[in-house]
Amino acid sequence: MDFRIEDITRDEIDRRLSVVEPLTDSVRDLVDAVIRSQVSDAELDAARAKIDEVVAALRTQQRPGSFGTPYTREFIGMPWGNAAVGARNALAPPLRVTRSPGVAECDMVLGAAYEGPGGCVHGGVAALMLDQLVGEAASTDGLPSFTGTLTVRYLRPTRLGALTARAEVTGREGRKTFVHATMSDDDGVTVEADAIMVSPKGFELPDGDALPHPANSRQDL
Amino acid sequence: MDFRIEDITRDEIDRRLSVVEPLTDSVRDLVDAVIRSQVSDAELDAARAKIDEVVAALRTQQRPGSFGTPYTREFIGMPWGNAAVGARNALAPPLRVTRSPGVAECDMVLGAAYEGPGGCVHGGVAALMLDQLVGEAASTDGLPSFTGTLTVRYLRPTRLGALTARAEVTGREGRKTFVHATMSDDDGVTVEADAIMVSPKGFELPDGDALPHPANSRQDL
Repeated sequence: MDFRIEDITRDEIDRRLSVVEPLTDSVRDLVDAVIRSQVSDAELDAARAKIDEVVAALRTQQRPGSFGTPYTREFIGMPWGNAAVGARNALAPPLRVTRSPGVAECDMVLGAAYEGPGGCVHGGVAALMLDQLVGEAASTDGLPSFTGTLTVRYLRPTRLGALTARAEVTGREGRKTFVHATMSDDDGVTVEADAIMVSPKGFELPDGDALPHPANSRQDL
Repeated sequence: MDFRIEDITRDEIDRRLSVVEPLTDSVRDLVDAVIRSQVSDAELDAARAKIDEVVAALRTQQRPGSFGTPYTREFIGMPWGNAAVGARNALAPPLRVTRSPGVAECDMVLGAAYEGPGGCVHGGVAALMLDQLVGEAASTDGLPSFTGTLTVRYLRPTRLGALTARAEVTGREGRKTFVHATMSDDDGVTVEADAIMVSPKGFELPDGDALPHPANSRQDL
């Protein structure tokens, strides 16, 4: 995996975000508009020509490959290309995750671009958002980890619209961290997930030093 | 879930796709360019202004809500808003799935927009693509079904780039269909998934009439 140090100040990060966030929001808007538009074929063709012009202008200077996951020396991450949280990635809603020890949560609005069954969130999109959240919950103490196994249970269809999601660490054992997560609409939980996160070698807890299960988080939703 | 009949001919479907597919490809290109561009802030702002103009033009006539899942009377589906396979959805790579009885497979190229860890496919994106494939495999005989449980195991990081995926029905029991799926790069399987798909009531097989497990599909990858 590719990491890189990009040693910029918090102010410079904010300045860059003030430019790219509105741009990415406009692209999200465009993704939605292309799905739902009912204008004529000629107008769709005209839209394509204009988009191609914009792409050509943006590509006059571009980084090779992907955005990667740069960090400042103060270890502020800038995962701006990330498919779930990326500030430069129009595929991401983006999730704006709030973290406290062992917990990650967020509100999100999933529109037409996240559809699977008619009018409903694609089951795989729910898995994508919950995979991101379990990773964020597992790393709130700075421990790096990757998803080893993710089990997602679909309790009922999730309508497109405003949703909340929450992930909470439920235990630790050696290099494994166990995380439970849920996605909910106004009527309660629609999807739940359990993840076994795995930390790289050298990050395991000593034998028998598993963290206790925190209070069951699902009633908080 | 929302279904609707849109009774158009195969020729009319092809005609519409010939307009929307190149448009959506251009938006995919734009999503990638916004992630990777290194042009000046002024140029990024100019891009945003042009995109907003395109969005306004497309939105002069648009359907409410989402695209939905229209079908012709011959039951040809047009899930063009779908997050994994949608011809109008720039979030979808899109997967172009080949189906045979009990099997769904596809090649795909996942670029910068599908990133999680630096240079690698987001684990949740792998889950999204495999969720789509298990649904396609389970429905090759026309039986409607939805994902009940999806278990995804990450064997090693999946580098961004050219990948293949395959899903195969391994058994049936009442309203449940069991499907095994894999995602692979040139060196072999990187992610595997098992799904329990559930069909609506009235679609169950009689007791004891479970289908036999087909030959293990993983060696084919």
